[in-house]
Amino acid sequence: MKIVIAGLGIIGGSIAKALKKYTDHTVIGINRSSAPIEKALACGAIDAAGSVEDLKTADMLILGTYPDAAVSFVRENASLINKSCIVTDTCGIKSEICPRLCAIAEEYGFNFVGFHPMAGKEKNGFDVSEADLFLGASSIIIPGNAPESAVDTLANLTRKIGFGKVIFTTPEEHDRMIAFTSQLPHVLACAYVFSPQCPNHNGFSAGSYRDVSRVASINAELWSELFIENKEPLVAEIQTLIDNLTLIQSGIKKGDRQELATILHRAKLIKEALGE
Amino acid sequence: MKIVIAGLGIIGGSIAKALKKYTDHTVIGINRSSAPIEKALACGAIDAAGSVEDLKTADMLILGTYPDAAVSFVRENASLINKSCIVTDTCGIKSEICPRLCAIAEEYGFNFVGFHPMAGKEKNGFDVSEADLFLGASSIIIPGNAPESAVDTLANLTRKIGFGKVIFTTPEEHDRMIAFTSQLPHVLACAYVFSPQCPNHNGFSAGSYRDVSRVASINAELWSELFIENKEPLVAEIQTLIDNLTLIQSGIKKGDRQELATILHRAKLIKEALGE
Repeated sequence: MKIVIAGLGIIGGSIAKALKKYTDHTVIGINRSSAPIEKALACGAIDAAGSVEDLKTADMLILGTYPDAAVSFVRENASLINKSCIVTDTCGIKSEICPRLCAIAEEYGFNFVGFHPMAGKEKNGFDVSEADLFLGASSIIIPGNAPESAVDTLANLTRKIGFGKVIFTTPEEHDRMIAFTSQLPHVLACAYVFSPQCPNHNGFSAGSYRDVSRVASINAELWSELFIENKEPLVAEIQTLIDNLTLIQSGIKKGDRQELATILHRAKLIKEALGE
Repeated sequence: MKIVIAGLGIIGGSIAKALKKYTDHTVIGINRSSAPIEKALACGAIDAAGSVEDLKTADMLILGTYPDAAVSFVRENASLINKSCIVTDTCGIKSEICPRLCAIAEEYGFNFVGFHPMAGKEKNGFDVSEADLFLGASSIIIPGNAPESAVDTLANLTRKIGFGKVIFTTPEEHDRMIAFTSQLPHVLACAYVFSPQCPNHNGFSAGSYRDVSRVASINAELWSELFIENKEPLVAEIQTLIDNLTLIQSGIKKGDRQELATILHRAKLIKEALGE
């Protein structure tokens, strides 16, 4: 296949590197700024620097940009995309963008399949991209109304570049789950480091501090877009967390050791039931 | 030195193993149940199974039990402890127990120095103890009114068994910092897994879920005691977290991307200022 990747940040860059490492496909890179393109060429992550003209002959277009930019890119270049091309995104939210991209795909006659690679780092950009970023990770695919062959092609490609499992779901289920598994930990990492004690933690901290605060090194521009575009499920998850924090806080205030232990033990049982 | 360790759980067991690996001291184990003693003897973590009679000739007594049990053990056996013995604990809270142990030490004429080894796992018991659990970790020491020589002896011993740094502090500062660095992450891990989405996370989760939920596999009996015995600082930290979650939640509800990005970016700056 001729695969065009638009946006060579950590995700687009890692997909490019993984494609070159694990497949024989031709990878063409497009990026707003030229530095990532030059680096990608230098390290062999892409076969060539491309332009929107390449969409006329591309078998797949992978959007490595932020959500709104992904929709804009496809809308502006829809007439160039060839009708057998499979267009996919890599965005962390789906309800806000998949229906818009599906509509454009239907209008212009190409295929759109939603995709969320469940991997990342607390740093961003092409420099921290890695061919093996996706090893063992979940590949979440939103088929929408794309033909089965397009969905299969994308699913198989993600398996080939290292993903450990493929999940098929709807935009709504994706967004509700991601609000809990990924967005909420980012929200609470930020809220956590706002404590006045944080700047003095050194010497008093160990693994717990490190793990909870890790993703507070946040890409504020990206995540503010993701949070607001998934407002309803995320606001609900934050409220659930606040309610449960308040429940435990009340147990501590009350001071009944057995009652508090019963509340906490429920958390252990949930983890055990998950085999964790 | 002849070192008696009372309580061979993950912490007492790891100290025993580290003492045998990194020093020539004689290690005597005491434990409520016999199984950990047998295991410790079998793997060479202790030189002998002991009894409270060994306190008459011990140079150091390390309490590996829960906080209340540590105070009870010392109170019940205070008359057996020889006057040159350095008694230390390993408890995660200090204001509630250090003054009580100091008072007993003064009454009976031995030395008490508070100690909190900043290391652990999400599992408990002798079986998960390790000689190298403390490599690079913080050794937090509460000198209280102990003589400098006793404080130095303990500090140097902790350096020898692998601790990366030694911090000297008061019970109050310790408890305020630990409420933030260690207790709050445990509270929020439990609150986090109470979400109705949690049992279905598999396939939708990656490092963020894993890191935040890790310590929800909590020892409910131990932590309910630790939380309640550090009630005031911990209730305050939970409230600070709730307030900051509410701040971010309001930003998401309002939907102003730039305003939300400004809030989130402050978290990144805090982490960067800490070199993290």
